[in-house]
Amino acid sequence: MIKVVLLGAGNVAFHFYEVFSKHAEIKVSQWYNRTLATLSQYKNQVEITDKLESISTTADVYILAVPDDAIGPLSTKLNLENKLVVHTSGSVSIHELNKKLRRGVFYPLQTFSKEAEIDFNNVPICIEALEKEDFKTLKKIAEIIESPVYKINTDQRQTLHLAAVYVNNFTNQLYRIAHEMVDTKHISFDILKPLILETAKKVETLSPYMAQTGPAKRNDKKTLKRHLKLIENPQHKEIYELLTQSIKKTHGR
Amino acid sequence: MIKVVLLGAGNVAFHFYEVFSKHAEIKVSQWYNRTLATLSQYKNQVEITDKLESISTTADVYILAVPDDAIGPLSTKLNLENKLVVHTSGSVSIHELNKKLRRGVFYPLQTFSKEAEIDFNNVPICIEALEKEDFKTLKKIAEIIESPVYKINTDQRQTLHLAAVYVNNFTNQLYRIAHEMVDTKHISFDILKPLILETAKKVETLSPYMAQTGPAKRNDKKTLKRHLKLIENPQHKEIYELLTQSIKKTHGR
Repeated sequence: MIKVVLLGAGNVAFHFYEVFSKHAEIKVSQWYNRTLATLSQYKNQVEITDKLESISTTADVYILAVPDDAIGPLSTKLNLENKLVVHTSGSVSIHELNKKLRRGVFYPLQTFSKEAEIDFNNVPICIEALEKEDFKTLKKIAEIIESPVYKINTDQRQTLHLAAVYVNNFTNQLYRIAHEMVDTKHISFDILKPLILETAKKVETLSPYMAQTGPAKRNDKKTLKRHLKLIENPQHKEIYELLTQSIKKTHGR
Repeated sequence: MIKVVLLGAGNVAFHFYEVFSKHAEIKVSQWYNRTLATLSQYKNQVEITDKLESISTTADVYILAVPDDAIGPLSTKLNLENKLVVHTSGSVSIHELNKKLRRGVFYPLQTFSKEAEIDFNNVPICIEALEKEDFKTLKKIAEIIESPVYKINTDQRQTLHLAAVYVNNFTNQLYRIAHEMVDTKHISFDILKPLILETAKKVETLSPYMAQTGPAKRNDKKTLKRHLKLIENPQHKEIYELLTQSIKKTHGR
């Protein structure tokens, strides 16, 4: 059995707690948060604490699921010399963890919201560790919760985190713009949902390069011109022009 | 039974033929294409022709699944006075069909590729017709193939077509950029696929506004700065900046 101490009370900590609780091979032996009230609903299930000096020193792994800026300072305050302490951030270097610790990273590449149930089969875990044994322990945890595991170093992880902004935040903003556009014409956003889903599914089996279609790829000047005339919001127009250029460049137009 | 004549041999015509053939309530009585060879594989299943003057005048609906520019000229050449003739384009006005015809639009809002099987449950059909009876006939066809049906006029359809470019072509280009980024670091694009799918699924139940997360929404300047430093391609950087601005504006940052 792997004994885990969780630190933090955001979405990532919450979902890790939920999934670890479902697997007998992992035991969350303690849960720390600066504000105890946030954890109070769990006090009958797990030992909770808001005192750094009360953190158990007998766990196998300490998972810091805290904001990026808190990782370094918190790791410095921990009295866990030579214990395996990992953070869960996409953009923070493994070396921002205090070097008195055995350091690692356990980064789940997925979008979490507190309400939605998470299927960890669909949460790739990007693992990094300085010691081979520690890498194995982290890999074991990911395997127990049935997540795909990838060995990813800090440099690669930062690129992944950046790429994730394009496919998640930026893509979602394109959905938002489309939503605004159809709203002004009293059209239900529902009509676009099957297309949104199919666009995402298509790249499961086809590369985005192969999956591309549309007026920009065809360099269909008439349609491109008509679309630009239709767009009223200057920022939406700029986005249309820039992404059209980008597609043309990719496809040699 | 509704008798249909198909005109054209692109992806849309092909998929309509396939789905109509599965339903006894619809009969494709003839299939026209300018180049007969493209249709030759179907010659034992359906009457094929490349002669406009041979087009049957006894069908209930004529579906022009041809390129946008061909719709007007082809409709003028048809000897189908007072017959119901529809096009399948998102951007062409209903009035570009020659007015000797009973005109309509039967626009499937989905991305089609020749290889992939299409589930018409996931293909919203946007219908427009000048006559009430014709609207009913078109609605009937959509219902037979079990597609969701929407009454959409030309003005709305053109906005939908534009919005579809954002959620399909532009989104796919963001996937492409992410693919390029991870490739340069020898990371598999597979790691991003669950996130891509989850991002699309999220807006099934949450508005894109509510679904947004990430550094731009939080106005997390440190991460935004670090990301910009990471991006080597100037066009990818421009896209990062513009979409970050757009998210900030949407969320009042």
